[in-house]
Amino acid sequence: MFEAAELGHVIDEHSYAEQVPKLRENLLDAQFDLVESSRFEVVIIIAGMDGAGKGEVIHMFNEWMDPRHIQTHAPGARTEADREKPPMWRYWRALPAKGKIGIFFDALYSEAISARVYKQIDNSELDQALDRISRFERLLVDEGALVFKFWLHLSENLQKQRFKTLEKNPQTRWRVTAKDWDNHERYAQFHRVAERALRQTSFNDAPWTIVEGYDFRYRNLTVANTLLQALQHRLQQSRVAVPLQHVPPETPATDDVNVINTLDLTPSLGKKAYQKKLLKWQGRLNRLSRKKKFTGMSVVVVFEGNDAAGKGGSIRRVINAFDARQYQVVLVSAPTDEELAHPYLWRFWRHLPGRGKIRIFDRSWYGRVLVERVEGLCREEDWMRAYGEINDFEEQLIRNRTIVVKFWLAISKEEQLRRFKARETTPFKRFKITAEDWRNRDKWEKHESAVCDMVERTSTEIAPWTLVSANDKRYARIMVLKTLCHCIENQLRQR
Amino acid sequence: MFEAAELGHVIDEHSYAEQVPKLRENLLDAQFDLVESSRFEVVIIIAGMDGAGKGEVIHMFNEWMDPRHIQTHAPGARTEADREKPPMWRYWRALPAKGKIGIFFDALYSEAISARVYKQIDNSELDQALDRISRFERLLVDEGALVFKFWLHLSENLQKQRFKTLEKNPQTRWRVTAKDWDNHERYAQFHRVAERALRQTSFNDAPWTIVEGYDFRYRNLTVANTLLQALQHRLQQSRVAVPLQHVPPETPATDDVNVINTLDLTPSLGKKAYQKKLLKWQGRLNRLSRKKKFTGMSVVVVFEGNDAAGKGGSIRRVINAFDARQYQVVLVSAPTDEELAHPYLWRFWRHLPGRGKIRIFDRSWYGRVLVERVEGLCREEDWMRAYGEINDFEEQLIRNRTIVVKFWLAISKEEQLRRFKARETTPFKRFKITAEDWRNRDKWEKHESAVCDMVERTSTEIAPWTLVSANDKRYARIMVLKTLCHCIENQLRQR
Repeated sequence: MFEAAELGHVIDEHSYAEQVPKLRENLLDAQFDLVESSRFEVVIIIAGMDGAGKGEVIHMFNEWMDPRHIQTHAPGARTEADREKPPMWRYWRALPAKGKIGIFFDALYSEAISARVYKQIDNSELDQALDRISRFERLLVDEGALVFKFWLHLSENLQKQRFKTLEKNPQTRWRVTAKDWDNHERYAQFHRVAERALRQTSFNDAPWTIVEGYDFRYRNLTVANTLLQALQHRLQQSRVAVPLQHVPPETPATDDVNVINTLDLTPSLGKKAYQKKLLKWQGRLNRLSRKKKFTGMSVVVVFEGNDAAGKGGSIRRVINAFDARQYQVVLVSAPTDEELAHPYLWRFWRHLPGRGKIRIFDRSWYGRVLVERVEGLCREEDWMRAYGEINDFEEQLIRNRTIVVKFWLAISKEEQLRRFKARETTPFKRFKITAEDWRNRDKWEKHESAVCDMVERTSTEIAPWTLVSANDKRYARIMVLKTLCHCIENQLRQR
Repeated sequence: MFEAAELGHVIDEHSYAEQVPKLRENLLDAQFDLVESSRFEVVIIIAGMDGAGKGEVIHMFNEWMDPRHIQTHAPGARTEADREKPPMWRYWRALPAKGKIGIFFDALYSEAISARVYKQIDNSELDQALDRISRFERLLVDEGALVFKFWLHLSENLQKQRFKTLEKNPQTRWRVTAKDWDNHERYAQFHRVAERALRQTSFNDAPWTIVEGYDFRYRNLTVANTLLQALQHRLQQSRVAVPLQHVPPETPATDDVNVINTLDLTPSLGKKAYQKKLLKWQGRLNRLSRKKKFTGMSVVVVFEGNDAAGKGGSIRRVINAFDARQYQVVLVSAPTDEELAHPYLWRFWRHLPGRGKIRIFDRSWYGRVLVERVEGLCREEDWMRAYGEINDFEEQLIRNRTIVVKFWLAISKEEQLRRFKARETTPFKRFKITAEDWRNRDKWEKHESAVCDMVERTSTEIAPWTLVSANDKRYARIMVLKTLCHCIENQLRQR
């Protein structure tokens, strides 16, 4: 795999000087078109052997192109703040917007490769880590990003030679650290593990480009030409791909029994009993939030439901139980321009809670498989693959000690009508009802089948959906509080 | 995930009787179109909880459709013979040809799920196993197959109820085994692990369909309708998909230095020295093949090279070293009709060696990234993804104690010309030279860059390419023998 990058490729000064001006001009032109059209973003992942010139390649990018539209992200070791979030959070944060170029420097792969070389993980754990990276990259590609992966390579001998040269010169001596020599000692292992990593993560739409890194001229020309050609190629392609649909997006229902229409909507609660239970469960929730163990966890609560099902009222009862510094409510409505310029999950990665915090989502990432699906706001293949992406996303949260609680507040069609009418006639509630609500109501059955699919595909043992019978608001609120308490208690017991 | 399949779906006799005739007719029609067009194959994977009616579903398929075009594969535990081949071999063997329906019953997933439930593997090993299955399924989908995955589900209570009912009846008592009750005891674990498996392996083009399996009418209608709709959907789709090409298939070369043109083609060997070395290395190879440890291994040798590079001559020198019962040479030329009706790797899975055997491939699966690429015999995206598929394939061989040795026999353009001419003038060699050889020669540079890409992407530490300098036939043959000996010795030492 690395054979071609151990041949000692060298470009002489003269032919370098000859090629560079035209190449830079073309690169700038392509970048200009990218910025102008802002149709997609470019993600460049730079990895490779120590001393192969990874940093220099990034300098080259910034020098040869317009650096205002390039952002470099060299995460280094995870900080205390990073550690509060799932490992991928750092990369989601740093994703470039459409029209921009984002460079990930010594990111994603280095951590996994080093961990394997230094025997902190075994091969199956390495494969697991690589699979997670692949899923992330696939998501980016599926969302339209152009993803590059450069492996800058250096043979064992040339690495040694490079380190010695750097050490001889007092100006560059600082660049060779003890860690570099430690790694050099383990060159053979790095070689083997890197090969496995490249093999496992190379796929058509985001292949690896292996570049010998010894001669800076060869390195610069190769990297820049690869970027240029792919950029030009992509800019010329039409906007819309026409994938072959292997299976129809919707499967037929055999009967009319489903998780939503079998939900018993009759339970209700009297005013007095409600008041008593409300105090009881809010108190219990509050005490939980003040436990020492709780400071090591995070909580994400998702509220979805029919229009007028009482999400807002339930959320208010939940937040009343907490200290105001602990929680935050994220109201999810139409995405901003900036959010539209990123993969749809990006806006949710932005809002992840830190340790000891509760983040409540009033509507959420499930919009993609609910309203966006029903209203045709995204393509079929986009919402179809969203189930898997959402499961991956939530799994990352949970692995990172976040408790994920998801509520679907269900009301009957009749109850909705009653509430809509009440809203129209009550002046202070009128803002809550719009023409859109009535339009949604017309598609009641389509929404219902989207909800059923969502529950079937994303209700998992680690992040189950709780279907809340919400025809009676008081009953629903108590059920929400109770479920939340039980989920948190369960998790605290397990830690 | 399983919520909707624990609701107790039941269809009454009357409406079942009403729906079935039309459904069967439509299914038969769709199957007829499938057979007629033979454009793609259908792979149905049936998995699920014990007692959920997996076997009955297969009876239904065979009863409702034309069973001559359906083949069922219920592998059971791996036999001694199976164990000589990689785990996936059993499934490759059983793949249906285009136009056919192949059913995999309690296959692929059951083994991994059971192993996890019974704690023979941990979560990361489970994920690794699931990833392998996913890669297999993706390959099938990419090669055009329509892949279905049905999970037949049963809640814990209904499973118990089902077993008890079966046990009460003397006619069906045999169907409930002690193992079934063992599994039932571990229902919660099966539930959890199955959920993880489904979550990890669900993707757009091969999603899971979860079906409650208690009521046979509901089960039959749901499974049959799902199959019917997807089959009709797919039959209506045009043949060719137009995928968005994210990156250009070929990357630019910065200089004209590559692994092929830097290969030193001058080494040669005198006749006498050759004879001596030939005897020496053939003897050594023979002795290796008679070692006890060798009977636990398999050997796959791949010969690729320029036309007239001397593959045949080298192969003859290799096989002379072995007992005739031990080796077999597979000459790979144009695929047969049957081979064309399967994914391209299928024809090679057919020819895997058993234990203690040597299988020599005169040209190989690399045809896809060499001649098929250069001659445009497959689409760009097909040969682009082939690198990864080939790496996966070889990894499976190696994990299964097969030694994989790959030779590229390289000659210069001038030497090839000399040999072509000699073939034309030597009567007994004339059959060896065709118009196609001359045509290939015209594309020398394209072939060369295909070879370089092949080496870069598929020369791995576990299955490296050996580039053989073959301008001198004697030198080449000795190098082949020597390399083969070293590879086998290396592996025998490690076992």
